[in-house]
This record gives sequence, structure tokens and C-alpha cells, in this order.
Amino acid sequence: MAGRSGAAAIVIGDEILSGKIRDSNGPYLIDKLRGVGMPLGRILTVGDDLDEIAWAINSCRGTFRPLFTSGGIGPTHDDLTVAGVARALGREVIRHPEIEAAIRSHYGDAMKEEALRLANVPEGAVLVRSPRSWYPVIAVEEIFLLPGVPELFRMHVDGLVERYRGDPFYLRCVYLGVGETEVAAVLDRIAREHPAVALGSYPRLDDADHRVKLTLEAQVEAPVEAALAALLALLPVEIVLRIE
Amino acid sequence: MAGRSGAAAIVIGDEILSGKIRDSNGPYLIDKLRGVGMPLGRILTVGDDLDEIAWAINSCRGTFRPLFTSGGIGPTHDDLTVAGVARALGREVIRHPEIEAAIRSHYGDAMKEEALRLANVPEGAVLVRSPRSWYPVIAVEEIFLLPGVPELFRMHVDGLVERYRGDPFYLRCVYLGVGETEVAAVLDRIAREHPAVALGSYPRLDDADHRVKLTLEAQVEAPVEAALAALLALLPVEIVLRIE
Repeated sequence: MAGRSGAAAIVIGDEILSGKIRDSNGPYLIDKLRGVGMPLGRILTVGDDLDEIAWAINSCRGTFRPLFTSGGIGPTHDDLTVAGVARALGREVIRHPEIEAAIRSHYGDAMKEEALRLANVPEGAVLVRSPRSWYPVIAVEEIFLLPGVPELFRMHVDGLVERYRGDPFYLRCVYLGVGETEVAAVLDRIAREHPAVALGSYPRLDDADHRVKLTLEAQVEAPVEAALAALLALLPVEIVLRIE
Repeated sequence: MAGRSGAAAIVIGDEILSGKIRDSNGPYLIDKLRGVGMPLGRILTVGDDLDEIAWAINSCRGTFRPLFTSGGIGPTHDDLTVAGVARALGREVIRHPEIEAAIRSHYGDAMKEEALRLANVPEGAVLVRSPRSWYPVIAVEEIFLLPGVPELFRMHVDGLVERYRGDPFYLRCVYLGVGETEVAAVLDRIAREHPAVALGSYPRLDDADHRVKLTLEAQVEAPVEAALAALLALLPVEIVLRIE
């Protein structure tokens, strides 16, 4: 493998683990990060539980950055992300005066007292504003606390990922007409001799036209092309169905 | 919340984190576990990396059981699940004679030496056989090592979840015509007074016919009905659009 780290995602919600709602935010973030050339190292999906959220944050923040959380932002008893992040970081939860002002402006005279819970943030948090929403994203130590509602999650992610734009991923694929065991020794050698390239091997058991798809990837073109050339030199030509 | 624990899933594969393949095994397992009344506590998605796999196993196995892993089973350099589980458990990787015999029988004279890597298991592993596959599931300390290929994953999961059949989940839903802040205080009270019931609150921002969906759930009917009655007694009747 070509090194770990990168971003991590923490998806929060009993509704996902219990199958009431299918998570679409994790997949959306995967695609967006890939689009900007930012590796994603982990996705942790946990329930609406303070200890679980704090554990997830703490198990990622030393190794991965940025962190994106999805869900648990809101005014109800099961919205525990702010408190969980604060616990993980050893920070107090404080009321943010700017968000409080925005809430009072948004709800006006009809505001319920519980709406002000939306102004709670981990101490030291900064706000990331979007022109498309009155409610900002809370960020602390490069942890971005995103709402789980897909429309809001996507809107905010679209802007945030631009901060992390890097070199695009460069990918080549080789499709084989034989099973993995036939090429395992060759793959060992390519992986060993080309450590800067991520080499993947994916068998297919359905009625696809190939039995194995190989992927060679890095964020630089030259080592991928070198690994591909070395691979093709070692594979019997008759088993290579096509190259993309 | 009505208590943590339950099963956990560890989805392994660079191809998922990099967006080359959309994971379908996690969602499938969510639905299957729910169908047999087995709570799911966490899903961790990690890359093809020994340390990451070992970390994921160790961070779950004290709290959750059973564990199901998806992916990283096979004969190639990126198939690291057996070694990662062994590392987590402090066990050696050994060659299992029964799997070795099955591999030799399956491949016959054309067998490549690398096929025998499929016989590697953590020491002390037991085999779970399926009438529909020549290759068994490796299990150790109630960790089930499942292949990532969806057809195989599903086949094995369908059998394994039957070992964990419990009381079915009992769910009631209430749809509201107002936002979450309007009912947050009521939800606080219901959650506090009915701790055996998982109470969820899910806002909608799209053009659904409701603004919030509340869920009340447990694996026993009576406390859910009691919480529902208490909830409806506290909610203004005009904001309740329907009850399911």
C-alpha cells in the first residue's frame, strides 16, 4: 500500500445501524473526496451514544485529518455529536453567541427555548458559513460537524472538500480471464517492487466478462505506468482481456 | 437509548474507501441482522492494511459480539484479514489441513502453490461449512471472516444470522407537521421516562408530507406502546399527521 492517513468519516445514527435509513452520506463523501484527490482512510458508523461518538473521534483524530462527522446535529435528545466531540477533545460545551443570534433571528418570536441547543459548540469551535444555509458548520481541530439530513450534508460537503484539493488519482485497470490464484505470485512481486502504487485485485463470480479486475493507482502518473508495464511483462498475454 | 452492544461489522477494502466499489455488504448485513432481531452496534470500514484490520477487531471484540468481517479473504497480497485477525487476537497463522485438502481437491493438478494461502487461518479457528460453497467460513472467538464478493458474503450471512435470532424489533412511528425544536422538550421527557425504548427523531427538509418522523422501538411491545401513549398525551393533537 502507498501509505495510510488522509481523511476519515464518522457516521452517527441509530437509524442507520438499525436499518431504518440507508446511509447515503458516507458514499457521497467517498465520491467527493476522491473527486478532489483526498484519500479517505476510514469510515466509522456508530450509534447515538456519547461514549461511542467520543471513541470514534479519539480513535481517528491522531491519525486522520480532516474528520467529517455526519448526523447527531440538532435540538433533540438524540443529537449528541457536539457533546461527544467535546468529550473526546476534553473541551467544555459552550453556547456560541453568533449562532445564538442567528437562531433568534431565524425563529423570531415563535422560538422555543430548545432551539438554542443548536448554539451549543465545543469550546474553541470555529464556524464555517455557507451562503445557502442560515446555520453554519461547527468545526474544531479540523473536525467538521455536518448534519445528517442528506440535502444539508451534501451542500456543506461540496464546499468543504475544496479545501483539500490535491493531485487527482491516476488509475489503470487490467481485466483478466483467470482466477486470482493464477496471478497471485506476480501480484506479490509488483506490490513489493512498486510500493508507491496501490495494487488491488478483485475477483468476480457473477457473469461478468472477466474473472479478476486489477487496479493500479497513485496520485502520480509515472509510477503507475511503470508498475503497469512491469505487470504486463509478467502476465501471460492470453489471460489479459483488456486494459483501461 | 436502550443499551449498547450487539453485533459489529468490519468492512475491509481500499476499493470501498476509494470509491471504486460501493459497499453493499454492510447494508445487507444491517437488514439481515434486523430481520433476526439482532442489534448492530457498529460498522467500521477500513483499508487493506494489517494494522487497521487488527485495530478494528480489537476495538470491537471486547464490547460487541459476534463480529462479521467482509473482504480481504483470498490468495493475493491485499488479502490481509486472516493475518489481521490473528494479530488482533495474538494468535499464530497456521495452515488448516481440512481447508488445504479442500483446495487441493477443488483445483486438482492445476493448483498453483499460492492457492494454499486460502488454507491459512488464525490458530484455533473453526470452520463453518455451507452446502453451497466448497470454501468454508473461518470463525474464531465468534469473529466470522466473510469474503467480500457480494454473492458469497450474502450466501454465508443468510446462514450465520440464524444463530442469533432473538425477539423481533417492535417499531411505532409518529409523523409530525412541525419542526424538531417544537417537540424537543416533550421528547426529552419521553426519552427520560421510558429508557427501555429507543426514541428517534428525524427531520425532513425535502418535500415529504411531514417535517419530523419519530420512531419508538424495542424488542418488547408493551414499553413501546406505553411510550407512544405517553408521547401522544403530550403532543398537541393538531401537529400529529399520522401514526404507524
